[in-house]
Amino acid sequence: MLSKARIKFIKSLQVKKYRQQEQRFVVEGAKTVLEVLKSDYQTECLLGTEEFLRSHTQLLSGFKGEQILVNQKDMTSLGGFKTNDSALAIAKMKANDPISVDRKEFVFVLDDIRDPGNLGTIIRICDWYGIEKIIASENTTELYNPKVLHASMGSFTRVSLFYTDIGKFLSGGKHQVFGAFLDGESVHQVDWGSGGLVVVGNEAHGISGRIEKVIPRRISIPKYGGAESLNAAVATAVICDNIRRSYI
Amino acid sequence: MLSKARIKFIKSLQVKKYRQQEQRFVVEGAKTVLEVLKSDYQTECLLGTEEFLRSHTQLLSGFKGEQILVNQKDMTSLGGFKTNDSALAIAKMKANDPISVDRKEFVFVLDDIRDPGNLGTIIRICDWYGIEKIIASENTTELYNPKVLHASMGSFTRVSLFYTDIGKFLSGGKHQVFGAFLDGESVHQVDWGSGGLVVVGNEAHGISGRIEKVIPRRISIPKYGGAESLNAAVATAVICDNIRRSYI
Repeated sequence: MLSKARIKFIKSLQVKKYRQQEQRFVVEGAKTVLEVLKSDYQTECLLGTEEFLRSHTQLLSGFKGEQILVNQKDMTSLGGFKTNDSALAIAKMKANDPISVDRKEFVFVLDDIRDPGNLGTIIRICDWYGIEKIIASENTTELYNPKVLHASMGSFTRVSLFYTDIGKFLSGGKHQVFGAFLDGESVHQVDWGSGGLVVVGNEAHGISGRIEKVIPRRISIPKYGGAESLNAAVATAVICDNIRRSYI
Repeated sequence: MLSKARIKFIKSLQVKKYRQQEQRFVVEGAKTVLEVLKSDYQTECLLGTEEFLRSHTQLLSGFKGEQILVNQKDMTSLGGFKTNDSALAIAKMKANDPISVDRKEFVFVLDDIRDPGNLGTIIRICDWYGIEKIIASENTTELYNPKVLHASMGSFTRVSLFYTDIGKFLSGGKHQVFGAFLDGESVHQVDWGSGGLVVVGNEAHGISGRIEKVIPRRISIPKYGGAESLNAAVATAVICDNIRRSYI
């Protein structure tokens, strides 16, 4: 049975302030809920329609949290996405633990990505290309924003995010640092080496002046037509693809 | 002076039915308005703040349509985007004229792209990569939807769209036909030849069964991690980049 207090709690987690306070977040939709259940996130409470719960008995047999049966109509009204009519879960946030970067891996560094859809899409792209870590500036959109989680399509369970002062982080000097600009070396020709950090900038302003100073290697996606720029997530995908194909 | 009737007319163009009826559409924001003024679209009416009109006197000296001075506050309330505080234009739609595809060019074919943001982003990506024509299925989102125009960042003025029965179009047999699937040949290895049609499918369902039958060459973006798929616009960008870099 779904209590009024629980409904209120779930709705409160749509708001960043309450998510921070409670250190909990909500995921919606069968696909993302299943991904969270399979991941190392700690799911405390699962709300599912009869059909959802019946379809996933095997996975749910190992689930230790609370399970609540909810009808389709109530489900749709609970979360932020009107299209969700099957499942919703409340899970615990992870701590913002520092990420260590191996010499032989590529990690993306986000300089103030503000649009939740872009951040979610970037996480999904990194997951597709086997990039497991993202470092984000402190002003980058919050990971647990429902729109970020939704756009990531469950990929946030496989990609770690660490929010930090990226200026300091990049100055550490242990890794190659690439940055996406409009006037750099073509990504079709870059010698990527075996690993490094790739900085992608804000949607409107690109990489900020302070961060630009600590980026030795400027890279660009070659342009053949009239558009002024590419969206930050699109640029991330093209860079990932060029990194990966350099290993063929 | 902005009449009530004009305000009503502008607001009506937010709705597809009225756009179709009037064969007019609205663009908002300084950047897009300037792109439309420079393009071969016929702009009938331009609304600008004092600052906007003063900053672009040279371009506007050649403008034959009506100019209306509007203050910032009224501008913001006029269109669909709250962030627009400088310019808005009413322009005439173009006819849905058939597109001819040259032997030596690549053209994208969209099979039911429904999300306006995706369609706009795909247009912007094609523009970046110098792809000047898009063929869209009849169920693909309407080009003149304000969200499509907004996401295209003015690129819709440089890329032609033709809505048609893409099944029939692809069966024409004159060109190579590639389609983006999850089980095709790696785009890193495809021999693209000198031109062709590239089909990209719907966000949720991919390329439909009917269209799949007329696609001889299945291509895929290699996956290195856990995500199930890439967003349609992101996939378009990666394919464009691979086509273009094969000519280095």
